[in-house]
Amino acid sequence: MAVGKATFGVMHPVRGFRLGTTRARIKYPERRDLVVMEAAAGSTIAGTFTRNAFCAAPVTLCQHNLSQVRSDQPLWLVINTGYANAGTGARGMADARAVCEALAQQAGVAVSQVFPFSTGVIGEPLPVARVVDGLPGCLAALSETGWDDAAHGIMTTDTRPKGASVQLKLAGGTVTISGISKGAGMIQPNMATMLGYVATDAAVAPALLQRLARQATDQSFNVITVDGDTSTNDSCMLVATGQSGVQIEETNQEDLAAFSAALNEVYLRLAQAIIRDGEGATKFVAVEVSAARSQAEARAVAFTIANSPLVKTALFASDPNWGRILAAVGRAPIENLDVNGVSVALNGVLIAEQGGLAESYTEAAGSAEMQKEEIQIQVTLGRGEAVATVWTTDFSYDYVKINADYRT
Amino acid sequence: MAVGKATFGVMHPVRGFRLGTTRARIKYPERRDLVVMEAAAGSTIAGTFTRNAFCAAPVTLCQHNLSQVRSDQPLWLVINTGYANAGTGARGMADARAVCEALAQQAGVAVSQVFPFSTGVIGEPLPVARVVDGLPGCLAALSETGWDDAAHGIMTTDTRPKGASVQLKLAGGTVTISGISKGAGMIQPNMATMLGYVATDAAVAPALLQRLARQATDQSFNVITVDGDTSTNDSCMLVATGQSGVQIEETNQEDLAAFSAALNEVYLRLAQAIIRDGEGATKFVAVEVSAARSQAEARAVAFTIANSPLVKTALFASDPNWGRILAAVGRAPIENLDVNGVSVALNGVLIAEQGGLAESYTEAAGSAEMQKEEIQIQVTLGRGEAVATVWTTDFSYDYVKINADYRT
Repeated sequence: MAVGKATFGVMHPVRGFRLGTTRARIKYPERRDLVVMEAAAGSTIAGTFTRNAFCAAPVTLCQHNLSQVRSDQPLWLVINTGYANAGTGARGMADARAVCEALAQQAGVAVSQVFPFSTGVIGEPLPVARVVDGLPGCLAALSETGWDDAAHGIMTTDTRPKGASVQLKLAGGTVTISGISKGAGMIQPNMATMLGYVATDAAVAPALLQRLARQATDQSFNVITVDGDTSTNDSCMLVATGQSGVQIEETNQEDLAAFSAALNEVYLRLAQAIIRDGEGATKFVAVEVSAARSQAEARAVAFTIANSPLVKTALFASDPNWGRILAAVGRAPIENLDVNGVSVALNGVLIAEQGGLAESYTEAAGSAEMQKEEIQIQVTLGRGEAVATVWTTDFSYDYVKINADYRT
Repeated sequence: MAVGKATFGVMHPVRGFRLGTTRARIKYPERRDLVVMEAAAGSTIAGTFTRNAFCAAPVTLCQHNLSQVRSDQPLWLVINTGYANAGTGARGMADARAVCEALAQQAGVAVSQVFPFSTGVIGEPLPVARVVDGLPGCLAALSETGWDDAAHGIMTTDTRPKGASVQLKLAGGTVTISGISKGAGMIQPNMATMLGYVATDAAVAPALLQRLARQATDQSFNVITVDGDTSTNDSCMLVATGQSGVQIEETNQEDLAAFSAALNEVYLRLAQAIIRDGEGATKFVAVEVSAARSQAEARAVAFTIANSPLVKTALFASDPNWGRILAAVGRAPIENLDVNGVSVALNGVLIAEQGGLAESYTEAAGSAEMQKEEIQIQVTLGRGEAVATVWTTDFSYDYVKINADYRT
């Protein structure tokens, strides 16, 4: 299941960034399951990663490599599906290194130029030989128009490829930002990963690129949830090839703001595409919390609502069971909440205020909103100015089916 | 569904404590739905309540009344099912007071001697007239042997009554502790409540009784979870009638320890009965975390595992998908966890250690343990001495069915 129409639009090529995809038969013979990406020499790279203490071996290697990047050689990314290479101890680290070494040798670059990513079942060893055997196929397929194939190549139980691409005109010329993603937090148990890859032909210095990547992640991938389970492999990489000739820098605040806004838009579309394709999802839900004392408080309330199994099953049932929303607000980890200041609305229809049902509310009005596929849950805390939005899905039979049937 | 055999054993009467139950047709005509309890003059009372900011009107009244108790009059408790009287604003408070006033008048006591409780759908007003009309039936049925009827009378979507009763011989004589409970956290969406009522014929001063109630709650109701959703109505009351003539006090540490242990046992059995009857439950699961730096840390890890939808769906599938347990440990809110010190076992079968699969582990052994109805998930953090156990259930189709079908 998935919410809304699949919208994998036109992916603008990014100069200096090539993608190659192949069927390496890593786990399922019929799938494209191995992707290689090359960013031309002179590119800069930034990344944001899972905070799970059991982070996968490739995540550890990527974090290490970020500080080792050389500008005189291309950067390479290699992504396999089928196995997450997480919970695999010392062997997992050796396996990830072996893949990087094989690609470095074939590509003629230093091994620290290679960033590895894995997604799939946790705890089983990576079949290194199959991954390595697939590399020549990926290299042969490398192309600046390889985005579509790559978006398919990183899918696991995703039902559709996910991509977003924008072009923007700046004073110095036109800049392209394109990206793909897969997964949905850790709703895909064995395929336990959200991955994102975004490239631009703007030129951005590493420190600024990292800051922009963090900001974009914070307002996109960090504010989506399907089940509250943080994966061991989450990674989102941002590469800037510079081949548009347009430099993004702090000294040009206007271009920086425009570029940052466009980048945020690409990240957000990729993150929302993950939610729309959440396991078993039948609804696309924005939980909007306002009038909080701080953004952290607004987010805490929004996440408590978004992760409540009772709210999620009510969404699945299209049931305007607003008592469950109030109960979630009431148990959110914030101090001294005065419930008399709280109001709750669905798609703008006021339901509860002053701790009880709004006089204007009718069950028919609430029910009509809950039937919709896209729902905004709007909560006002009445004690400050801060706002936050978290995107989530409902909780359906199919969620249980997908996550209980695997391996059995 | 429910786990294991229903075991509503012999309930020893508690001298000075009577219970009366009736069908008041509050919501469903065929159910026993109204219960009144009377504790003889001279009784002491203690209570523990939900921390949900949207706590129900009766919870607010109970907390207020605890400081107003007179020892020259009996204490009364009145419990209705069908409506939670939560999220009902100012009207909800007036309604709860109206019920208390009616009972106080019929019983001839001060209104502050009456403790009201409601359980059921959140947000709809309490049908006060039906509750008040049911009171004479409850009063007529009052009996020290009324435990069984009362256990049925407080049920909502529970599939079985829940009770526990022990007798213990102390230096001064024999003391009885009996109690009943209902619900399972907030897995019963509209019937949104866990309730517990425990009575003893020991004599216990109010401050000590409150301390004992808190301790018992902390190691029982506070360490169970079905879905992480804290109800608006959770309440557990402890009444001491003193009519055994046995005084429990700080100056007799031996009797105090024995009484406290027996009380904890009653609370724990009532709490575990709620988990065994959890909505859609097919497993009874103890998550045992040891070698933590503090009990708070051990609990945080145990709750993260116990509330993970992915761990719960794996339990439903009897799938030894230990990667999900590792991932939950890794995202638990604790600082600087070294995964190399972590080990995970199922019913004593070591699965993971040093960040990866244990050499001794076989899928057959793990699978055999996961088929069982009672499962211990044993996690060692390897960084301290503290331990904690949390009890939970799995996450089944029936959980979604029960919580999505309501009101639709």
